[in-house]
Amino acid sequence: MTEEAEAGINLQPHSGSEQQAPQFLRDVIFHGKFKLLKALTPEESTQCQHGLFFQDGQRRVDYVLTYPVKKPGGSRSSRQSVQLLAENAVACSLRCGPHSCGEDLRHHQAQRTGNPSCLQSSTMADVEGETFNGHDDQKAFRREEFEGKLRDMGLELEKDEISKIPGVGFVKIHAPFNILCREAEFMKLKMPTKKVYEVKQSSGIVEKISSLVSKVVEPLHPHVEEHQPKNIKHLSHTFSREKQHLFDLSDKDYFFDSKTRSSIVFEILKRTKCKATYSMGITSLLGSGVYTAAYPLHDGDINEESAEPNDRKLLYEEWANYSVFYKYQPIGLVRKYFGEKIGLYFAWLGLYTQMLIPASVVGVIVFLYGCATVDDNIPSMEICHPKNNITMCPLCDRVCSYWKLSTACGTARASHLFDNPTTVFFSIFMALWAAMFMEHWKRRQMRLNYEWDLTGFEDEEEALKDHPRAEYEFQVMQKSLRKDRKSQHKMEKLTCRDRLPAYMANVVMMLLMIGVTFAIVFGVILYRISTKAALHMSSSLITRNHVQLTVKTTAAIINLVVILILDEVYGAVARWLTVLEIPKTDKSFEERLIFKTFILKFFNAFTPIIYIAFFRGRLVGRPGSYLYVFESYRMEECTHGGCLMELCIQLSITMLGKQLIQNNLFEIGIPKLKKLIRFIRSKQGAFQEEERQKKLKRYETDHFLEPFAGLTPEYMEMIIQFGFVTLFVASFPLAPLFALLNNIIEIRLDAKKFVTELRRPVAARAKDIGIWYNILKGVAKVAVIINAFVISFTSDFIPRMVYQYMYSPDGSMHGFVNHTLSYFNVSHFQAGKETLDPLYLGYPVEICRYKDYREPPWSATPYEISKEFWAVLAFRLVFVIVFQNVVMLMSDIVDWLIPDIPKDISMQIHKEKILLVDLFMKEEQGKIHILESRASTGTKEIFSRSNNNVSSTTAHSCSRLHTKSTKASNASDDVSIVQS
Amino acid sequence: MTEEAEAGINLQPHSGSEQQAPQFLRDVIFHGKFKLLKALTPEESTQCQHGLFFQDGQRRVDYVLTYPVKKPGGSRSSRQSVQLLAENAVACSLRCGPHSCGEDLRHHQAQRTGNPSCLQSSTMADVEGETFNGHDDQKAFRREEFEGKLRDMGLELEKDEISKIPGVGFVKIHAPFNILCREAEFMKLKMPTKKVYEVKQSSGIVEKISSLVSKVVEPLHPHVEEHQPKNIKHLSHTFSREKQHLFDLSDKDYFFDSKTRSSIVFEILKRTKCKATYSMGITSLLGSGVYTAAYPLHDGDINEESAEPNDRKLLYEEWANYSVFYKYQPIGLVRKYFGEKIGLYFAWLGLYTQMLIPASVVGVIVFLYGCATVDDNIPSMEICHPKNNITMCPLCDRVCSYWKLSTACGTARASHLFDNPTTVFFSIFMALWAAMFMEHWKRRQMRLNYEWDLTGFEDEEEALKDHPRAEYEFQVMQKSLRKDRKSQHKMEKLTCRDRLPAYMANVVMMLLMIGVTFAIVFGVILYRISTKAALHMSSSLITRNHVQLTVKTTAAIINLVVILILDEVYGAVARWLTVLEIPKTDKSFEERLIFKTFILKFFNAFTPIIYIAFFRGRLVGRPGSYLYVFESYRMEECTHGGCLMELCIQLSITMLGKQLIQNNLFEIGIPKLKKLIRFIRSKQGAFQEEERQKKLKRYETDHFLEPFAGLTPEYMEMIIQFGFVTLFVASFPLAPLFALLNNIIEIRLDAKKFVTELRRPVAARAKDIGIWYNILKGVAKVAVIINAFVISFTSDFIPRMVYQYMYSPDGSMHGFVNHTLSYFNVSHFQAGKETLDPLYLGYPVEICRYKDYREPPWSATPYEISKEFWAVLAFRLVFVIVFQNVVMLMSDIVDWLIPDIPKDISMQIHKEKILLVDLFMKEEQGKIHILESRASTGTKEIFSRSNNNVSSTTAHSCSRLHTKSTKASNASDDVSIVQS
Repeated sequence: MTEEAEAGINLQPHSGSEQQAPQFLRDVIFHGKFKLLKALTPEESTQCQHGLFFQDGQRRVDYVLTYPVKKPGGSRSSRQSVQLLAENAVACSLRCGPHSCGEDLRHHQAQRTGNPSCLQSSTMADVEGETFNGHDDQKAFRREEFEGKLRDMGLELEKDEISKIPGVGFVKIHAPFNILCREAEFMKLKMPTKKVYEVKQSSGIVEKISSLVSKVVEPLHPHVEEHQPKNIKHLSHTFSREKQHLFDLSDKDYFFDSKTRSSIVFEILKRTKCKATYSMGITSLLGSGVYTAAYPLHDGDINEESAEPNDRKLLYEEWANYSVFYKYQPIGLVRKYFGEKIGLYFAWLGLYTQMLIPASVVGVIVFLYGCATVDDNIPSMEICHPKNNITMCPLCDRVCSYWKLSTACGTARASHLFDNPTTVFFSIFMALWAAMFMEHWKRRQMRLNYEWDLTGFEDEEEALKDHPRAEYEFQVMQKSLRKDRKSQHKMEKLTCRDRLPAYMANVVMMLLMIGVTFAIVFGVILYRISTKAALHMSSSLITRNHVQLTVKTTAAIINLVVILILDEVYGAVARWLTVLEIPKTDKSFEERLIFKTFILKFFNAFTPIIYIAFFRGRLVGRPGSYLYVFESYRMEECTHGGCLMELCIQLSITMLGKQLIQNNLFEIGIPKLKKLIRFIRSKQGAFQEEERQKKLKRYETDHFLEPFAGLTPEYMEMIIQFGFVTLFVASFPLAPLFALLNNIIEIRLDAKKFVTELRRPVAARAKDIGIWYNILKGVAKVAVIINAFVISFTSDFIPRMVYQYMYSPDGSMHGFVNHTLSYFNVSHFQAGKETLDPLYLGYPVEICRYKDYREPPWSATPYEISKEFWAVLAFRLVFVIVFQNVVMLMSDIVDWLIPDIPKDISMQIHKEKILLVDLFMKEEQGKIHILESRASTGTKEIFSRSNNNVSSTTAHSCSRLHTKSTKASNASDDVSIVQS
Repeated sequence: MTEEAEAGINLQPHSGSEQQAPQFLRDVIFHGKFKLLKALTPEESTQCQHGLFFQDGQRRVDYVLTYPVKKPGGSRSSRQSVQLLAENAVACSLRCGPHSCGEDLRHHQAQRTGNPSCLQSSTMADVEGETFNGHDDQKAFRREEFEGKLRDMGLELEKDEISKIPGVGFVKIHAPFNILCREAEFMKLKMPTKKVYEVKQSSGIVEKISSLVSKVVEPLHPHVEEHQPKNIKHLSHTFSREKQHLFDLSDKDYFFDSKTRSSIVFEILKRTKCKATYSMGITSLLGSGVYTAAYPLHDGDINEESAEPNDRKLLYEEWANYSVFYKYQPIGLVRKYFGEKIGLYFAWLGLYTQMLIPASVVGVIVFLYGCATVDDNIPSMEICHPKNNITMCPLCDRVCSYWKLSTACGTARASHLFDNPTTVFFSIFMALWAAMFMEHWKRRQMRLNYEWDLTGFEDEEEALKDHPRAEYEFQVMQKSLRKDRKSQHKMEKLTCRDRLPAYMANVVMMLLMIGVTFAIVFGVILYRISTKAALHMSSSLITRNHVQLTVKTTAAIINLVVILILDEVYGAVARWLTVLEIPKTDKSFEERLIFKTFILKFFNAFTPIIYIAFFRGRLVGRPGSYLYVFESYRMEECTHGGCLMELCIQLSITMLGKQLIQNNLFEIGIPKLKKLIRFIRSKQGAFQEEERQKKLKRYETDHFLEPFAGLTPEYMEMIIQFGFVTLFVASFPLAPLFALLNNIIEIRLDAKKFVTELRRPVAARAKDIGIWYNILKGVAKVAVIINAFVISFTSDFIPRMVYQYMYSPDGSMHGFVNHTLSYFNVSHFQAGKETLDPLYLGYPVEICRYKDYREPPWSATPYEISKEFWAVLAFRLVFVIVFQNVVMLMSDIVDWLIPDIPKDISMQIHKEKILLVDLFMKEEQGKIHILESRASTGTKEIFSRSNNNVSSTTAHSCSRLHTKSTKASNASDDVSIVQS
């Protein structure tokens, strides 16, 4: 292109028919040229081979659409279609010719309101005689129409039906520079200007420390060379064609990077209407099968050594690689390649993983403290002491007998690992950790916003571009068709009444699904109870000895399997329910989907755990009056060490199992499988795979990749993990460690997936992680309450404290075990429930003990709840209130103390603004200067002042500047003019 | 002014000396003109008389500065000063002449960096021979310098030293239209464009209902006619001189209203530096006494019937008037006159008052329910029953005797008014009310933002303009002077170390002040205890009978007085402490001040109430082992009805007293007094007051008004009231009603103050109420917890419930009173503490009763805390947890359900954006059209393309448009250019 043509930016997107004509002709000319070019230089032909450029080797492919082609082969048809288009164009210009100039505006309006334009009708007429038939005919027609519209918008298209993949046609789209400029201005993209400035480092000691730190962590940074020194930043400004001189446009091909180009093209594709009222843009065309896929191209190959260096390859080497797991992520590059939204996800994941390091260190210390002090723990010592002679009541009716407390020694010692005073400290620590994490993320986000020049960008702008979804528009159209008799075709929308059935279905289904979760938890409980009872009755001694282990293991595995299955089911149900709702925009679709998925998955993952933490062992009743399920099964009791131990086991199995199986197995396995299936399916030819692979062009290779399905699953997985890390951290201090280990793999796994397995996603701008932040905040809030309850109700912390400070005779823990056990007279057993083997321990038992705070049989009110129970309960509750409020207050203080915007960033933003104002001020002065000198040469006559509204911008500014210059050069005259 | 001159907008604020010259000359010419004009028409002279315009009757006075004048009279001196300035200018231009053109930029830079400019040095030289001496000399010199700078900035000044107020000189400032335009562009003011659009009303039933509602509330709207129909809104756009044609500039005098003009001038005054590095703008000059006051003018008179209609008069009639108390406020007009910040305050106050209506209705209903059911209340019936024969233990040592419970009948019945089940409902209601209020305010704020065209305006922009405060800069200068040896004059700032003493002082003083509050509360307790003891010992029966009443009343009054005094003290202390801190910007100053004031005042107002609610009557001990203060005074007990009654009394006295005395008396009285004092002080002449008043010009009248001191006190007062309304609403359901009554007066009172008592404040833009919103939110959060505790611990609600469902033999409340009273064997009294009159009731007493849950004397552990106590405590705590979490969850749900942006507003904003894009698109097309037709006439030679950076904006756009047009007209040619 010549410089002149590029400077002439297309200001007229819908310029009417007289512009279409030349564009069509242009295409013809190009298609003619290719054949010449192709034969010319070998470099260009390899470039074409790569498929990253049009066949002229000049114009970059910014986007690819694919569509189904019935008949394989046919260079004729493709050439023919080009010819066809040219004919259309000529025909159109001939037919529309007479009106073209005078009726420009009317024509334009006609196009807008969707009446068939000249082009469309002519295309239709010409296409109708063609080889397409029936359904495909219709689709081909809509494709032609759509592509025509795209050409109207200024995009350049190239078709390729003779690809190596039979049955698939490709439309390659290129956006010329002037179109990019126009759209960048509309989208208010911030671009770097020529002006650079130095990012001031903090001074004095702080600087020294930070430089030292950066030297230490130097090997942790990825080897991604940056184009500019670290302390130099380009001032950026919203791109505007009027301010073009601010930007460095010397290399027009690279001013907009490939991510920006593809997002611009996607923007055009989205808003280009194909037919009146219904069906908006590419999404609806994809939905109706007119096109089969739409994707931008990856930057290049990663595997071949011959491949020239590109961002994708760099990402593959320095990011999507397990061997660099210990390094920081090259977030800047990720953002450059995938856009801000995906960049923010990885930045968030990185920060989360980083923050998990201190949490897991503290968790491990807490666990080790438990290990170290297990021998000093008086209650477990008392239980394990050989002289301990406490006889406990049977654990089940009839088949079980009395047992010695000392046999529970093992579990008591194991409990101490997780149930010691440091867990209280640790859960406070983790609550504050969560608050810190949120704050840090806010700051990191702000820093990234600054670095990525998003500071001025409002989300509202983004919302403006949220076109209604195709399904929504379709529904609205149907509704208005139904109501056509009374409405005057005015803009309809779906009211509450229209949506009522869908809403009802949603509520019912959600409740049903949650009900299913509860039912399954209950089922597992029943399984445990009945299996235990059955196994106890077994005659084999070995079986009976391993009852506990067998039951617990099988139950936990069943639980895990059910959770994994339901997770997939719930994901599908949530999507289906959201589709039913027909939300208006993509954004609201996403939010509703996330909301539903989150609720279902959260219930699914945490219901069994919540049951164990708060309900198990509490609804047992007491000896002589146990609580029965189905009149025969006694409710589960916890082992002597308290339910915390069981909670811990359940938590670790669920968490580890979920992470190992779901994240790693599913995430690696399934995409590979899918890719394989797709590949096999399309393999209809007979030639060698290897050979074919190599010969494939870029857009063909990318076609075999999995399409990008959004970040929701990735975030969801992490949020559930965040739940495991924070919600029950009081009972499982190693959770952060497991999460950390998982995430180190997860980052690289996701990176690999994005770089190699998926088609390149369209870059989306985003300032924050949206709804996920609120969900995280909600989880952190709930975590405080749940931890308070876990500590005070599930663990034995409060009873121990109460005993030590209220009841202990010597202020020590000695006698605590005895204090927590109530007495039961075995003669009070219900008939038929007493043990069959009363002499199992070798001596007759009159009084057995059980864990509860109840009056002894000899008191005035035997087996009534005792005063100790109420006292302990009161203290438990006091602890909950104090813990909740103190931790919430501390979180608020953390929130308040740490400013949301890092100080250096706010200073830089301030500085940037000042620099920008300065720049404009100087420019304005410079302008005057120039005009002053010009004014003296006397070119007054060209600036004739007119009140014509349309041209007034230019005219105004000119005359204004002129007046100014006159004024300056002629001071005394000026006074009279200005002041009279 | 001629049109041409106005169109020629000053693009060059610091244009150097060659521009100063004409401006100075202009002043001379004007001063000459006045004398002619003054004698000419009577209308113009009256206009001058009003003082709203310069003496030419044309140019509006936008701002007034006053300064002290030593010698009274002297029309000579003022004329002389004008002459002087003219001479300076001439001298300057002569001296600087040779360089003026070539060295323009250097000169400009020199001025910026603060080196003495030509003007300054010359002014100095000339002024030095004058009549000023010593200190005044210095001040006068700085005034001259400052005013010179203002003229450089393009402002027009007029001096008036011959005013009727001796000793005060006035500088009237006028901003010409071009300056206003320039500054409006810099400040990114949004101005209405010519384009109007229809605000779409919601359709169908909703519309009918809303129109019906609006018809009903029609009389509640103030009679402020609006310039445009309600459903028509001007599209507004950030003012830009390049887009001038968008705006309706037909009436240039009124395009910027008086509030905008004054805020623009204030902006210039603020940023105009007087001397290098130190002393920034008008604030520091005011601080150092160079000027005594700076204020914009009110729009006109309010009292005289002759006064022409103006906004101020309209506000006085339709807003600042008690007779319109039932009407909505004309918020739009308030904003138009006072700016957004004050507008938001009144909008907030209005919404708060409005929201108080349902709250007080429900409160009254709750109270009435209490009144209606007082006779059905079983506990009070039992107490009052004549057959009730319970003997209570003495209320004080020795002098008091046993008493019959039935004598407490009155208080028991009264307690029921505030302590009945509906209070629980009411406090949940009020917690949700608070959440609703916050949500409603967010929505109202958004609506106002839309109506006031603040939607695009970022607070960051505002922060950018936050110049460091003069005190801060002074401190920094001093520091850098001290450190001059090692620093190379680089930008210093105050570090933590510099501020450490101030921070320490802050912390210490804050703790001390809070300590004082506690001490005073403790003092009042001591007063109550000791007085009660003393009065009990009195021999007079009447005195003894009225002990309760006397003590309570006097204590409450003392409390109130102390609170009122400390409130003032704390306000002063907080300000002093903040001044000590030397915050960098005004914004941070305000925030720190608010924070400190809030903490101190909150403690002051609520400490006695919190004592009564949660501590009184709880640290009493039990008969036989009472708790003593100073070894002789028993701690206070509550009356039998529980402490809720006393809490209620204390609350109502504090709240009513504070509101009546502080708000109304202080707020009305003190400004009047101050005004009087200032008036008397300046009254040195002998002529009649009345006569003089009438002759005073606008700027002289305004000089006698109180300066505007910020909205902090107004907000603070309301926040404390909000605290009274929400924090202890469980104990005082009438609080919202009292608040409502107060606020109805308060709105008009504040309005009157702003319209008549205060100088006009400079309009400040604000999008929200800032820190106050967070404080409100904090108070609402704390309110939930406090109410939970009040209901469960202060009221008898939980014990009643527990009795009814756990202990009552027949499930009714019968026997509750007996259940709450423990037994005491009188023989267990400590020696010397038993009553002196054991036969006071006429029979010997062996067992007396007291209110507590303790074991009876005959149990194994006499006087130990009983099981009931623990059970009740546990239920109290459960209630707290449940209440807190449920209410917080409900608040969150309310927050989540009510969208922050009203739907119609978000749609309007969306629509506005689309319209704006549309407008620009059309304009662009129109431009092309024009240029196309022009291009054909062949004016190509003027658009010579140049790479010159400075002129490229204009040149670029021109050449671009040109190329475009060529392209369009010459299609085939075009193809080759664009594509080659």
